[in-house]
Amino acid sequence: MEVTVIGLGLIGGSLCAAVRECGLAKRIRGVDSSPLHRAQAVELGLVDAALPLEEALAGADLVVLAIPVNALIELLPRVLTQADPSSTVTDMGSTKELICRAVEGHPQRRRYVPSHPMSGTENSGPTAFVPTLFARKTAVICEKELCEPFHLERVEGLYRALKMRLVHMSPKEHDLHAAYVSHLSHVISFVLANTVLEKEQDVNTIFDLAGGGFESTVRLAKSTPTMWTPIFEQNRTHVLNALDSYLDHLRAFRDSLTQPSTDENFRLIENANRIRRALESMATRGTKT
Amino acid sequence: MEVTVIGLGLIGGSLCAAVRECGLAKRIRGVDSSPLHRAQAVELGLVDAALPLEEALAGADLVVLAIPVNALIELLPRVLTQADPSSTVTDMGSTKELICRAVEGHPQRRRYVPSHPMSGTENSGPTAFVPTLFARKTAVICEKELCEPFHLERVEGLYRALKMRLVHMSPKEHDLHAAYVSHLSHVISFVLANTVLEKEQDVNTIFDLAGGGFESTVRLAKSTPTMWTPIFEQNRTHVLNALDSYLDHLRAFRDSLTQPSTDENFRLIENANRIRRALESMATRGTKT
Repeated sequence: MEVTVIGLGLIGGSLCAAVRECGLAKRIRGVDSSPLHRAQAVELGLVDAALPLEEALAGADLVVLAIPVNALIELLPRVLTQADPSSTVTDMGSTKELICRAVEGHPQRRRYVPSHPMSGTENSGPTAFVPTLFARKTAVICEKELCEPFHLERVEGLYRALKMRLVHMSPKEHDLHAAYVSHLSHVISFVLANTVLEKEQDVNTIFDLAGGGFESTVRLAKSTPTMWTPIFEQNRTHVLNALDSYLDHLRAFRDSLTQPSTDENFRLIENANRIRRALESMATRGTKT
Repeated sequence: MEVTVIGLGLIGGSLCAAVRECGLAKRIRGVDSSPLHRAQAVELGLVDAALPLEEALAGADLVVLAIPVNALIELLPRVLTQADPSSTVTDMGSTKELICRAVEGHPQRRRYVPSHPMSGTENSGPTAFVPTLFARKTAVICEKELCEPFHLERVEGLYRALKMRLVHMSPKEHDLHAAYVSHLSHVISFVLANTVLEKEQDVNTIFDLAGGGFESTVRLAKSTPTMWTPIFEQNRTHVLNALDSYLDHLRAFRDSLTQPSTDENFRLIENANRIRRALESMATRGTKT
């Protein structure tokens, strides 16, 4: 299969590595607006060639867009128009509703399979690639009823080959769930970083003490605004709802700290502990294909 | 050296394992109010014997208390009274001000070295022990001026043998910094768990999507109320201040999401990204002894 990956950052670069490792591609061509990223992707062997968009689209069986969601909305309709009539097109964007809307009624709509592999790290750029980034994680496919079965199967086959679980939902459902599980986690991590950085002028002091759980909670705060500002913009309504619900729970927790009795605080923590079982049941289910 | 560890949970159990591994102890005796934890600690070889308090204190060179901070306040003065006149006593509690106050003016005060090794996991009980839990983390020592040099050196020697960095500060400074770096991280993680658990009745749906950063942000929410409610209670003032500062930053971030321009949101995320350099500089400094 001829695979073309547009966007050679962490996600696109990891996809190239994973696709190569599972032997799915005869050739991988890459597209990126950054000359540095193009050079790095070639040097790391992630792509066989880094080319201008038009050249990279010619003869591609599968075209994957892995660029920030604001750029996706602009580029996806054009790629769908310019790609070969037999090409399958998919994207890996973290929002789905506005992206699907951008190609609503597009004459080539049935060759496009909206998807979101739920996996990432806080790092960026092709040098941050992780060949196993997708394994045992979930890939969401949206609007499968609007996809030609041949193209749907090609994209689902890709994710299965990467050892991902497949889940189907509507773009709206995806954006709602993603707001709670992924986007809210990023907001609270960014805000934790801002709080601590403002408070602690003496960076050494605070980071001497980072062993106590801070590092994992603040990990996502290293994620770039280039990727995340557009996600928050496109998923604004759901993110604001999730954030408001979070604020309610935060105020309730704060209240429990001001009460003479610690019973309510104990109860709130005990309730939060239920997350352990939920996460463990996920790990147990493992890879479903 | 004869070492007695009071409290055979994650911290006490890990301490036993680490002390044994570095060859510091001739014998390790353990004390725990839970028969199950006592049996597990013996079976895992963490302690040579699990004994009642009085027996375990007799002849101990070093007594380490690793119990929840509310129990610490009760037990520490008694241990200091009952332990052999040559014993060194230290604790591993996550708060320091009220604990130090509990033994203020105690006739044996100079044999007690207040400490807090800043390290842990979200798990509990002796079976969760991690022999390398302390390595390359920071141990805070408070009120060293109130400790007999011999006893101070014994406790600092212990932490050095565990490959920890040593930092000295007042109990008040410790509690302030810990509120921002450790306790606040736990609050926001507990609250994230409560928010998501309330919203998502269909646990499967949400946890299929947990790849997107949720798992690391919510990890600390598995920590037990038995340990954390007393920490929040003892460090209430600093935790409330940290939480209010966090709430201010959270509202500012929320505001940035409602503005027509995304500039402010971009700026806030860019500011949060500075945490990367701060954490990297910590990693680079490595172990100082």
